[in-house]
Amino acid sequence: MTDKIALTPKTHTTPPARFSHGVKKGNILQVAGQVGFLPAEEGRPPAPAGPGLREQMLQTLANVQAILEEGGAGWDDVMMIRVYLTEVDHFAEMNEIYDAYFGEQGLTGPPAARTTVYVGLPAGLLIEIDALAVLG
Amino acid sequence: MTDKIALTPKTHTTPPARFSHGVKKGNILQVAGQVGFLPAEEGRPPAPAGPGLREQMLQTLANVQAILEEGGAGWDDVMMIRVYLTEVDHFAEMNEIYDAYFGEQGLTGPPAARTTVYVGLPAGLLIEIDALAVLG
Amino acid sequence: MTDKIALTPKTHTTPPARFSHGVKKGNILQVAGQVGFLPAEEGRPPAPAGPGLREQMLQTLANVQAILEEGGAGWDDVMMIRVYLTEVDHFAEMNEIYDAYFGEQGLTGPPAARTTVYVGLPAGLLIEIDALAVLG
Repeated sequence: MTDKIALTPKTHTTPPARFSHGVKKGNILQVAGQVGFLPAEEGRPPAPAGPGLREQMLQTLANVQAILEEGGAGWDDVMMIRVYLTEVDHFAEMNEIYDAYFGEQGLTGPPAARTTVYVGLPAGLLIEIDALAVLG
Repeated sequence: MTDKIALTPKTHTTPPARFSHGVKKGNILQVAGQVGFLPAEEGRPPAPAGPGLREQMLQTLANVQAILEEGGAGWDDVMMIRVYLTEVDHFAEMNEIYDAYFGEQGLTGPPAARTTVYVGLPAGLLIEIDALAVLG
Repeated sequence: MTDKIALTPKTHTTPPARFSHGVKKGNILQVAGQVGFLPAEEGRPPAPAGPGLREQMLQTLANVQAILEEGGAGWDDVMMIRVYLTEVDHFAEMNEIYDAYFGEQGLTGPPAARTTVYVGLPAGLLIEIDALAVLG
């Protein structure tokens, strides 16, 4: 029996329901859908970085990374990244930011697989990202 | 070589194509996208619980749970829950129902990670949920 | 420490950003979201099979399969298939094609679980499919 543990970075806002920002069990680590919320501040409601896709996306990636690191993992362990955009028109810009970001992460292996689809998100949110990692 | 087995609760309607409601292989259990269909009755086409999000969502969760149990698993084994809603306006109500539901499940560990996005679904369906579990 | 390796069939177009068409680590194989692009030809931009859903979907499935095979896997190893359609009206036709396709694959075990949702995709694309496999 391996224990499932919650991964809850101090920077993260409290989830709006009974779910975890990330969980790890054995060698599997799952990051919940992250959005571009700035680090939590007491007494302030969650607010996304802005004003554009770039700021919101980089904050979202930082939020994913914080959960990976909380679980002793990093981008090199990530197998799959799911990118949810609200606008098809954002695809090219997202790819440019994505490419530059992962170019700077010093990956020692191949980048993760990825699926990008266009969905609805709550008002003000332009992007959501989740990730599945296999450790070890 | 570990065998992949299908998980097919007796209460479930026949899938409309060659896929399984759930599969298990080694310690990985994957639940297919479930909707709020009431238990199958011979000669009756699949029909969702209703009339509102609450009834449909609770039936959907029951359908996911039946597949987990068919595989000898439970909510405590679930790493990731994907919630697909059709209406952004349903987010708050979904969270309320989600929170209450998992509060009643007697989880012994942290709740699963979760991603919620807003998509299209066939007419009459307000929610779809799938789940990935790691056993043992 | 198990290495993560990239799965890159020769037939595939270069990804538009730093992600892999597929990755394998230990017994987990993840296929990135595939669309119905015809085999890559130098000097030609990626173009989907057509004109209809059938041609595009069969090419998409072939693209997924090529990645599985690059990783020494096949459809029997697949646990989860995610189907993204742009039109709810395509559900019945997709199921028919899906059913026939997997009927011809000579599966020795149960078919994978599946989730189908309706999202936006870049212009000209009617379907996207990704897959998670557990080997061995």
